[in-house]
Amino acid sequence: MIVAVHTPSEARTADWCAMLAERLPDWRVQPMNAVTDPAAVRYAVVWKPGTGRLAAFAGLKAIISIGAGIDHLLEDAALPDVPVIRTVGTDLTQRMNEYVALHVLRHHRGMPALRAAQAQRRWQPVVMPAAPDRRVGVMGLGNLGAAAAGLLAAIGFDVAGWSRSPRAVPGVRGFAGEAGLAPFLEGTEILVNLLPLTEETRGILDAGLMARLAPGAALINAARGPHLVEEDLLAALASGQIGGATLDVFHVEPLPPEHPFWTHPGVTVTPHVASLIDPPTGSRIIARNLRIFEETGTAPDIADLRRGY
Amino acid sequence: MIVAVHTPSEARTADWCAMLAERLPDWRVQPMNAVTDPAAVRYAVVWKPGTGRLAAFAGLKAIISIGAGIDHLLEDAALPDVPVIRTVGTDLTQRMNEYVALHVLRHHRGMPALRAAQAQRRWQPVVMPAAPDRRVGVMGLGNLGAAAAGLLAAIGFDVAGWSRSPRAVPGVRGFAGEAGLAPFLEGTEILVNLLPLTEETRGILDAGLMARLAPGAALINAARGPHLVEEDLLAALASGQIGGATLDVFHVEPLPPEHPFWTHPGVTVTPHVASLIDPPTGSRIIARNLRIFEETGTAPDIADLRRGY
Ligand SMILES: NC(=O)c1ccc[n+]([C@@H]2O[C@H](COP(=O)([O-])OP(=O)(O)OC[C@H]3O[C@@H](n4cnc5c(N)ncnc54)[C@H](OP(=O)(O)O)[C@@H]3O)[C@@H](O)[C@H]2O)c1
Ligand SMILES: NC(=O)c1ccc[n+]([C@@H]2O[C@H](COP(=O)([O-])OP(=O)(O)OC[C@H]3O[C@@H](n4cnc5c(N)ncnc54)[C@H](OP(=O)(O)O)[C@@H]3O)[C@@H](O)[C@H]2O)c1
Repeated sequence: MIVAVHTPSEARTADWCAMLAERLPDWRVQPMNAVTDPAAVRYAVVWKPGTGRLAAFAGLKAIISIGAGIDHLLEDAALPDVPVIRTVGTDLTQRMNEYVALHVLRHHRGMPALRAAQAQRRWQPVVMPAAPDRRVGVMGLGNLGAAAAGLLAAIGFDVAGWSRSPRAVPGVRGFAGEAGLAPFLEGTEILVNLLPLTEETRGILDAGLMARLAPGAALINAARGPHLVEEDLLAALASGQIGGATLDVFHVEPLPPEHPFWTHPGVTVTPHVASLIDPPTGSRIIARNLRIFEETGTAPDIADLRRGY
Repeated sequence: MIVAVHTPSEARTADWCAMLAERLPDWRVQPMNAVTDPAAVRYAVVWKPGTGRLAAFAGLKAIISIGAGIDHLLEDAALPDVPVIRTVGTDLTQRMNEYVALHVLRHHRGMPALRAAQAQRRWQPVVMPAAPDRRVGVMGLGNLGAAAAGLLAAIGFDVAGWSRSPRAVPGVRGFAGEAGLAPFLEGTEILVNLLPLTEETRGILDAGLMARLAPGAALINAARGPHLVEEDLLAALASGQIGGATLDVFHVEPLPPEHPFWTHPGVTVTPHVASLIDPPTGSRIIARNLRIFEETGTAPDIADLRRGY
């Protein structure tokens, strides 16, 4: 029985193999590229495995996504029909919480303008509203969105959340489904996207959505690049409807050097670091999920492929 | 009975007068400069009134500091011997919480380096430790420090606090007094100063203190400029012992244009905005304290002038 591992970087794949082998001493863990006996592969632990690669493993029992998202798998039309286990955990939630709190606070307290003033040696105190008078909206109330919305409420913000089915998060005004989108967006001054990328959510951050936000609103995209219609954001920044944006994810990653986001004064670019899984923590979660699945035939955090997340 | 009001700005003084007059319709509220009957002044509501000014009011019953600090009064050797009431409240705490959380998270997540990478169009993901593996120390566990330390713990940081007398803040490791300072500083990666400015705390942020922190630590001063020995910070930044600093307060404010902090790549300058009292909220608190003092002869948040805060 083989566990085949793949990431886009050979060095990182080797890292994951070593960590998993240590935690699963009785299992055979191999880089996918080094597998010589494809029929013996029972589990694939992967990030962006590429199209058609997994179909080679006829005895596959489950696919483990090294991360919370599964959109990197769904592009594969030949994906084997086995359960897909997402890798989530308190460490991923913790890191995303930090990222969301940081960037909401940066926009709330006008940090980009303060830094620009510093560059010009301008001493210009401005009284900002306090967090209870600031409306923040979180799109997606799953593992990550619910935790982030709860933390924002604990910091003191006036927080609303949006999900597909109704979700109760303490201290957060909840909205659900297509009918709930417009009232959710209404008056939102800082919008955080933590949706999964599905057919329904691709391109959801478009001109129509941005027009519904409070004038000068800030946009934070920490989910997936294709959620955002990039030209629409540039137009909304130019008109002032969007006052600033923090983007962690992009249509093309790494963001190409010629992309206008890099140098746009209203855009903060971070290199897909909102919540990185580090191998020590991630391998602990994955090893546990593999053992649970091997024993019980199921595991926590199995994605619903029909739903797309 | 007159309430005399003074701030360094005539426009702001007029603002405070208008707001206080509205909330105290049965009292006479006047700008200090416009008082023609000094003997009738019973209360002085002031920020930086200047030396000797308050001694002119022989019938003064209490001084109200428009803010949490009273160091701006203690420089006056002729300060009348009456109670000094500090202005604090949930709004001030809320705003300071936001400032502290924002700047701790900025240093924790390496924002200055990420912004520098963006300026060079460099896509350079780095895995940072998560907050539970980051040691943050808060100096001062009063109204502001205790609340900020509690919020940092709620975000997930490993938080320690330091005060004069032992203070229990849930989730925060407590240290007290001179003997507690060295063990408190030991291993601290992000240090937040929220002490009052007194004879004992002036210049406390010096080379000796900085040398005790973890190498490359970040320093956040949101209390008073003279807590910091500015040359010592510049030297510690040059040696790398301090990796970055956020400063809201300075020996001279506004920070003079020629000051090296403005252009230092390791220093974030904010123009004394960590927690501004806005007149609508502040005047509500002050009016309430004045009524309480007039009725009972005492009030919450009376400073201890002997202790200096
Ligand atoms: N930038 C980074 O470093 C990073 C790191 C990790 C993850 N991510 C991204 O974050 C995403 C979210 O992760 P997660 O673990 O929180 O996902 P999750 O637990 O699956 O939660 C997804 C949430 O989105 C809602 N949702 C899905 N489709 C929707 C629709 N059409 N309309 C309204 N709401 C919809 C779901 O509603 P229901 O509650 O009704 O199901 C749920 O609340 C991942 O898919 C990934 O793309 C980014
Ligand atoms: N930048 C801004 O916008 C801004 C806004 C508001 C206030 N501030 C500053 O913040 C300061 C703190 O305000 P606050 O309302 O929290 O003050 P506070 O309630 O008086 O609390 C002061 C804290 O510092 C501790 N302390 C005092 N002297 C000490 C010493 N020698 N050694 C160790 N600990 C000592 C006290 O210890 P005990 O608990 O034992 O008494 C107490 O915990 C103000 O004085 C002001 O300078 C700045």
